Amino acid sequence: MQQTSWLAFSIDRSAKIPVFEQICAAIRGRVVSGGLTEGTALPATRVFATELGVSRSTVVTAYEQLVAEGYLRSRQGSGYAVCTISETEPNPSPVPSIRPAEDTALPPIPFEIGQPDTRLFPHRQWAKSVARVCRTNPEAMLAGGTSFGNPALRQAIAAHVAEWRGIDAAPHQVIVTAGSADALEICMSVLAEAGDQIGLESPGYLPARHFAKMRGLKSVYMQIDDQGAELPLGTPKFVVLTPSHQYPLGGAMSPGRRLEFIQCAESTGAWIVEDDYDSEFRYAGRPIPALAGFDRMNRTIYVGSFSKIFSNALRLGYLIVPDILLDRFRAAIKRSGVKASYMPQQALAEFMTSGEFYRHLRRVRRVYGERRKHLVDQLSREFAMFGTFEDHQAGMHIAFHLNDGLSDKTIACRASDAGIAVQPLSALSGKPYSMNGLALGFCGYTEDEADSALEKLKTCITKSVG
Amino acid sequence: MQQTSWLAFSIDRSAKIPVFEQICAAIRGRVVSGGLTEGTALPATRVFATELGVSRSTVVTAYEQLVAEGYLRSRQGSGYAVCTISETEPNPSPVPSIRPAEDTALPPIPFEIGQPDTRLFPHRQWAKSVARVCRTNPEAMLAGGTSFGNPALRQAIAAHVAEWRGIDAAPHQVIVTAGSADALEICMSVLAEAGDQIGLESPGYLPARHFAKMRGLKSVYMQIDDQGAELPLGTPKFVVLTPSHQYPLGGAMSPGRRLEFIQCAESTGAWIVEDDYDSEFRYAGRPIPALAGFDRMNRTIYVGSFSKIFSNALRLGYLIVPDILLDRFRAAIKRSGVKASYMPQQALAEFMTSGEFYRHLRRVRRVYGERRKHLVDQLSREFAMFGTFEDHQAGMHIAFHLNDGLSDKTIACRASDAGIAVQPLSALSGKPYSMNGLALGFCGYTEDEADSALEKLKTCITKSVG
Repeated sequence: MQQTSWLAFSIDRSAKIPVFEQICAAIRGRVVSGGLTEGTALPATRVFATELGVSRSTVVTAYEQLVAEGYLRSRQGSGYAVCTISETEPNPSPVPSIRPAEDTALPPIPFEIGQPDTRLFPHRQWAKSVARVCRTNPEAMLAGGTSFGNPALRQAIAAHVAEWRGIDAAPHQVIVTAGSADALEICMSVLAEAGDQIGLESPGYLPARHFAKMRGLKSVYMQIDDQGAELPLGTPKFVVLTPSHQYPLGGAMSPGRRLEFIQCAESTGAWIVEDDYDSEFRYAGRPIPALAGFDRMNRTIYVGSFSKIFSNALRLGYLIVPDILLDRFRAAIKRSGVKASYMPQQALAEFMTSGEFYRHLRRVRRVYGERRKHLVDQLSREFAMFGTFEDHQAGMHIAFHLNDGLSDKTIACRASDAGIAVQPLSALSGKPYSMNGLALGFCGYTEDEADSALEKLKTCITKSVG
Repeated sequence: MQQTSWLAFSIDRSAKIPVFEQICAAIRGRVVSGGLTEGTALPATRVFATELGVSRSTVVTAYEQLVAEGYLRSRQGSGYAVCTISETEPNPSPVPSIRPAEDTALPPIPFEIGQPDTRLFPHRQWAKSVARVCRTNPEAMLAGGTSFGNPALRQAIAAHVAEWRGIDAAPHQVIVTAGSADALEICMSVLAEAGDQIGLESPGYLPARHFAKMRGLKSVYMQIDDQGAELPLGTPKFVVLTPSHQYPLGGAMSPGRRLEFIQCAESTGAWIVEDDYDSEFRYAGRPIPALAGFDRMNRTIYVGSFSKIFSNALRLGYLIVPDILLDRFRAAIKRSGVKASYMPQQALAEFMTSGEFYRHLRRVRRVYGERRKHLVDQLSREFAMFGTFEDHQAGMHIAFHLNDGLSDKTIACRASDAGIAVQPLSALSGKPYSMNGLALGFCGYTEDEADSALEKLKTCITKSVG
């Protein structure tokens, strides 16, 4: 009872404000009022969670949010402590609060896939990087680039993929795009023409199918087995693969299968587009190097994204392109126009080189790891009678395969009515392959939010039985 | 000789640094060193130009650049005076200099069309707007929007088109896009499917033809007469028009022709996409209201752009969409993904509402007006034997029609070899219509740069005769 004396408060479960935000608000208030002074250790997460009657990960989320905002710092191996506000910011800003803007209040939708938790984003640190550019190099927000993007960012990306993805590429091979969807569209306009075949995974990423259809490309689907995508039939001009973490099923492609794809591309003159959409999120073991590194950027075009680590709102992704294709990519971008905003690029480069980016990445990986574990535990315990799943200890969602007799589309419809967003695997499948299951994102919301959503999901599934 | 005593210096014409930048550097140096004190009047532009042996517009460009940077202010009707640096910025920033980044040194290419002079951009004022967002509302850079964009920016755009373009639209009808090319692509994906007919102007905007082809749409071309585009044959799902200032010829569509298009759209259920790409630039008379205002947003989708006023690097444009189409636009954007970066949007909204945007617009309009006049004078004087042109006192380029026997494509090739970028009108034409002429941009470079480019162009044309 000793620790509760100074930080105890009661959680209002009937309030519209999420529990973790109530914890944040209480701590923020005490830091600002001076009740919590610099260096004070916060209660251990397990202890505090028990005291408040919430899950441990809710407390972790709240603490990490406050680290992101600059109220707390995490001490290596020994919990969290209070920062003074002046320690983090020379001119204290008005306290950022999570307030919905008019007509835009979009709370996170439980299970929506590919959505990071933007509430964890270090808005202040990002604002500092941007403000630094404003102060020291304002022109770099609008001038000094080519159609391939800002030189400093291209350099930071080359360094990032070298360290994180095992890709040895020069900055001149990096093209900054307006997210990975833009990157995929550019690849399609360079590598194939109307009537050509292309290979897509089934199940796979829906926008790729949409872009292919819009361009009159013929999609040949590749089934996924336990080694990853199978080689496609026909003679596609290029294949789109997710070898590090198959979308949406989650496994990694075996080294043997990778080699088969590379050899096949070499012998037929085809290209491999590697969509490495969420590879930074692995929760155990070593990262799985990119296919592009294995291939030494010979037949592979690499697509990376900042949306998962950062926020969809930034709209920045990138391509890494073999030298021999650079002129064709330049011409295609010239024809269609650059879509990527130049303005955030210098600040993002500084955010990456200053290390803030990686601090954030480690932080969210820790939180998402907890959330994944929670979802895995709940699914094992409460959903085993409805189907099966594999835990690949990676990514941002889990693919849950439904037993026969349960229709993923029916359940997804019911779930949508109940305010949750499960993705039916059958909708992501291409002919002649089909799958029956649900992709459940676990990153964008807290454990508490997950628990109430899982209850709703269970009701939806139960109603669909028989 | 009196005035030269304190500001005289010699221009180095052999230096790689443009003449106007040499003038800027000299004045900047004296302001920073204290040699020019607050309130000191600069020499009148004509006087100073004569002294230095440069054209008047070079001096105007240099002065305006320094106004943009905060070293000078323009005094209504009475020239320019020195500001102290502290007057413009509480914390003086390092002096911004126009330095090419590595591998990206892209000097303006004379005559390139649609290119604003980014050297005139008020980088500091823009940086202030961005820094203010960083300080007061950092989350607004990444959170709080919908797939249609930032609420504050949508509101600022609605106010802008009401005042400048005579369009009465609510903020919820505004969709922020990644430039006007993205806006056009979204329109195409919403309003037509593969195999459908669409109407495009001939000559017209090349990317529109490219996007249509990529989507399997059949382009029906509309010839341009002295009233603007003629009604298309066939039954297009939509037509793309540039009624305020035909691209690339330059005339405005007559009221009678506007009404015909609106009536035709109403009776056939077709849509009008109004591409209002550079309508803010009129150098005489009153602005020509948008077709969308005339039509009261009934059958017209309006496409606007910030690239011409601001910079291509921002990559922001917008759509204004009739209420009845909003759901279809929302679904299309969801399918393809948002391309517009959210990050600059709040700052741009503040830049607009603070009036900086309009100060910049008035400033560049003054400079571009001078440059247009210079080009018109030179063409009348030196190029009359090669062809004819009309001066519409608007836009960012002039269409010069070549006499028979001169091939625009041949001249454009030669010009490109000589480092200038004239656009052949024949390349912008669609079957069965063709035109022979050159579109000459006049905004992106100074009068001095124009003079040497015009000499080169004259050589290219002379060589093509006979």
